[in-house]
Amino acid sequence: ILTEEARAKEYLFLANIDPSLQINVLKQMASRPKLVGLDTMDFWINGDRNNLSKIIELIDVLFMDEFEIKSFTGKNNIFDAADLLHGSGPKVVVVKKGEHGVTVFNKGKIFAAPAYPLNNVTDPTGAGDSFAGGFMGYLAKTQNMDFENLRRATIAGTVMGSFAVQGFSVERLANLSNNDINERYDDMVNLTRFSSVSEAGPLAGKTDQVSKI
Amino acid sequence: ILTEEARAKEYLFLANIDPSLQINVLKQMASRPKLVGLDTMDFWINGDRNNLSKIIELIDVLFMDEFEIKSFTGKNNIFDAADLLHGSGPKVVVVKKGEHGVTVFNKGKIFAAPAYPLNNVTDPTGAGDSFAGGFMGYLAKTQNMDFENLRRATIAGTVMGSFAVQGFSVERLANLSNNDINERYDDMVNLTRFSSVSEAGPLAGKTDQVSKI
Repeated sequence: ILTEEARAKEYLFLANIDPSLQINVLKQMASRPKLVGLDTMDFWINGDRNNLSKIIELIDVLFMDEFEIKSFTGKNNIFDAADLLHGSGPKVVVVKKGEHGVTVFNKGKIFAAPAYPLNNVTDPTGAGDSFAGGFMGYLAKTQNMDFENLRRATIAGTVMGSFAVQGFSVERLANLSNNDINERYDDMVNLTRFSSVSEAGPLAGKTDQVSKI
Repeated sequence: ILTEEARAKEYLFLANIDPSLQINVLKQMASRPKLVGLDTMDFWINGDRNNLSKIIELIDVLFMDEFEIKSFTGKNNIFDAADLLHGSGPKVVVVKKGEHGVTVFNKGKIFAAPAYPLNNVTDPTGAGDSFAGGFMGYLAKTQNMDFENLRRATIAGTVMGSFAVQGFSVERLANLSNNDINERYDDMVNLTRFSSVSEAGPLAGKTDQVSKI
């Protein structure tokens, strides 16, 4: 049972609970939130596919890991799986791949980001919820759902997930400074950036062009 | 037995053959090439670790998949494994992760790139060699080993690997145009780019800052 205050929220994240309860929570909202995100897991995919399918039709951003999305859609790759899911409701499909990062689909547009590099994970529990929290929180704060902003939200989620796994429970998250977060966002820029080939000449060229270098 | 012409080459890639043969090939070179790359596999890691360790000490760029590098170094993550390998010789360690892309280490610097998104792989045979070919070829053409150029070489390798798996043997590679290659490089830019948070305001902020949006 949501409080009056909770019912008025504009951004709703339905974390990984019983799909019938997720439907119930959404119904309690005073009006349709601006953005509804949803996470789920194997247990509900296998145990209550019917209600899970119903709630997925009602949301905007679906978070699933790569195995869950294949299992739920029956597709053997995340690209076909995301296409199928777009057709059933969610405009945004976020495929989580743990240490391999995340791939975000937005009706034909794709963004891929690696995980933050960590050589020591204390406890992976909560990584997915922290990712979703960073992602949804970034969108709630910036009030912008275009794909450029979804890219930044994905990095915000990646950063928050990386802190979550560096401690048990919320140990590491509880001690975060703004600076810690912004530094790690910048690390992600440096981890992934590369320039276009025009800075180094065309990627492919005829042999006589090669000899000019 | 290398030909006179082959012995004079400045860029040498020792593909996945018996490590004692790789050592033999390197010895036949007229002088130390500008750049020596090397690939290997489980069979040699388990079967001739002694000679494999010897040749790895003599090369510049090591290509391994994520399972091979953990197996060879005894480390349980690719970050510690790359650190260990830098100490033994290779300035550059390229960890291949198949559909999850590649992570490149250059003595403390890291670059991570996703795989090119493909929903239909015809035959993965030759993906690794095509990646290494694109990577080494890009460096040979641009004659530049700084980390910015290693990033571009990684994307060039990623592009060539993506074409290789779209046909049997060299079917798809044999029919490539320069334009095909450059287009896919640009696709990789769009797949991975995201802007700094300054465009959307700071990532983390106090609550009173949030309300101003």
